[in-house]
Amino acid sequence: MANHTLSAEPTHSRWNADLLPRLTIDSGDTVHFECQDSSGAQVHPGMTVDAFGSIDRGRIHALTGPVAIHSAMPGDVLQIDVLDLKHKGWGWSSVIPGLGFLKERFAEPFLFHWQLEKEVTRSLAPAIVPLRPFCGIMGVAPAEHGEFRTRPPGVFGGNMDVRELAAGSTLYLPVQQPGALFSCGDAHAAQGDGEVCINGIECPADVTLRFHLHKGQALAGPLVESAPSDETGSSWLVVESSTDTINAARTATDRMVDLLSTNWGFDPVQAYLLCSVAMKLQISQVVNEPMITVSAAIAKSILPQRSLFL
Amino acid sequence: MANHTLSAEPTHSRWNADLLPRLTIDSGDTVHFECQDSSGAQVHPGMTVDAFGSIDRGRIHALTGPVAIHSAMPGDVLQIDVLDLKHKGWGWSSVIPGLGFLKERFAEPFLFHWQLEKEVTRSLAPAIVPLRPFCGIMGVAPAEHGEFRTRPPGVFGGNMDVRELAAGSTLYLPVQQPGALFSCGDAHAAQGDGEVCINGIECPADVTLRFHLHKGQALAGPLVESAPSDETGSSWLVVESSTDTINAARTATDRMVDLLSTNWGFDPVQAYLLCSVAMKLQISQVVNEPMITVSAAIAKSILPQRSLFL
Repeated sequence: MANHTLSAEPTHSRWNADLLPRLTIDSGDTVHFECQDSSGAQVHPGMTVDAFGSIDRGRIHALTGPVAIHSAMPGDVLQIDVLDLKHKGWGWSSVIPGLGFLKERFAEPFLFHWQLEKEVTRSLAPAIVPLRPFCGIMGVAPAEHGEFRTRPPGVFGGNMDVRELAAGSTLYLPVQQPGALFSCGDAHAAQGDGEVCINGIECPADVTLRFHLHKGQALAGPLVESAPSDETGSSWLVVESSTDTINAARTATDRMVDLLSTNWGFDPVQAYLLCSVAMKLQISQVVNEPMITVSAAIAKSILPQRSLFL
Repeated sequence: MANHTLSAEPTHSRWNADLLPRLTIDSGDTVHFECQDSSGAQVHPGMTVDAFGSIDRGRIHALTGPVAIHSAMPGDVLQIDVLDLKHKGWGWSSVIPGLGFLKERFAEPFLFHWQLEKEVTRSLAPAIVPLRPFCGIMGVAPAEHGEFRTRPPGVFGGNMDVRELAAGSTLYLPVQQPGALFSCGDAHAAQGDGEVCINGIECPADVTLRFHLHKGQALAGPLVESAPSDETGSSWLVVESSTDTINAARTATDRMVDLLSTNWGFDPVQAYLLCSVAMKLQISQVVNEPMITVSAAIAKSILPQRSLFL
């Protein structure tokens, strides 16, 4: 049950199963990750939109990691408890020509700086936006070897932008490579579903995660147990990414039926009815091309308590 | 400020601007609607799945109405305050071959009866499902003349299946025809986002609605002010239906940018950023072919209070 610290530098901006681990830990250990903002510390308070236009976009996502977990193998599940996330009082959001959900309407570059109080920002008055920091990206190295852009999420997690992954939540990922090779970054002090303009409140952050390895457990894709402090209370969220929104929603629903029948003993058709009367469907992100991410959620309060991975 | 009561019979099961109003009211009046379940009282407690297979599907949705509102004209906004919804202790959900989000996986007919307590149902033990009755359908007569199936929702409202339309919420609809010609039904004691199996908890219900007419107000499509008792607090929800999920989400986002800039004075690009950091995107229904309904929501707590239609 050791505690480790991982400095931000050197970051990495591609998924690559052949990156050497910067740290190797045991199941049960905690790691304090120092995370740069998604630009890799190229954006700074007061930066102009013109200067923003010339940052090196190849460095974007600037992840901290990878961390290897002893004895992790494909077929295992990696549990990541999000213990704490702290922003540093400042963040930014932008409009980048050619990107974003309304790219035709908002075609001009724009850069906005946020002053962050502990729990809210008043920078966009008269709105008072609550802050709920999370990592837009938490993932393990993908199954394929090679160098992959970090924009699209997948079965390995990655750029899911699931805003429920705030402090108090837990993420479960299927290990794809020996050692798992976990990295995180792209911290957002706040983000809506969709992340429609292409950014949340991008910010540097201190991120504390605890890892547990569950040997030989089936998991088809990312699964989240949201925090009890979540506005809707703690939920089980099945996270699915696809190039097609409705396919992501359908696969997430299918996995939720499996989750309910496997773990709570419902007949599959009864689990299907339960989804129909009690499940939520959220579009977590719409901008991480070519993938859309949908989360299907069931409130834990409607079910007897279960630990899904022992 | 009169009170009226409208009995369930005769129901109607098509949208048709040429139906004669069963009741004509003034702005400010309240109407108690007696609503049959969506089958038009063909399903009853204890019915077998075999008997269910031979109900007359042409009667489905069995709406109560239409109600004409004096002086309502296209270009006006009809405000519908949902004052109360009471189920009657029983409901049903089904699987119908060829329908539903997982129609390939669940191809066999199935009928389930729910016993409803005041606030929960324990019929699908061990789940305890909270009840939050709402009308799956509230709508005004569409702009086109003719007889239209009630399954697809549209700019006129209709089969939106937006679960936030529970007691305490308000729906705003753009009037399409002289008199507006409002009808409602398809009550659900509970429903998840998506209504994935094709049903919520279908139930007969007593529905109390109060109507206000706002003359000459622009409204591009349905808008909901959810109840303060909503699990996430009261929100503004822009509701959009399209044959394509991502198009529905995009149009809803576009309308939310307009709503924020028109009513709270944000520059459109700042409204876009606000959506990116604070808006939710829910898939309200996926089964009302050929339309998918997406709701984009902003919590009222982050904005100064406004009455959008005066």
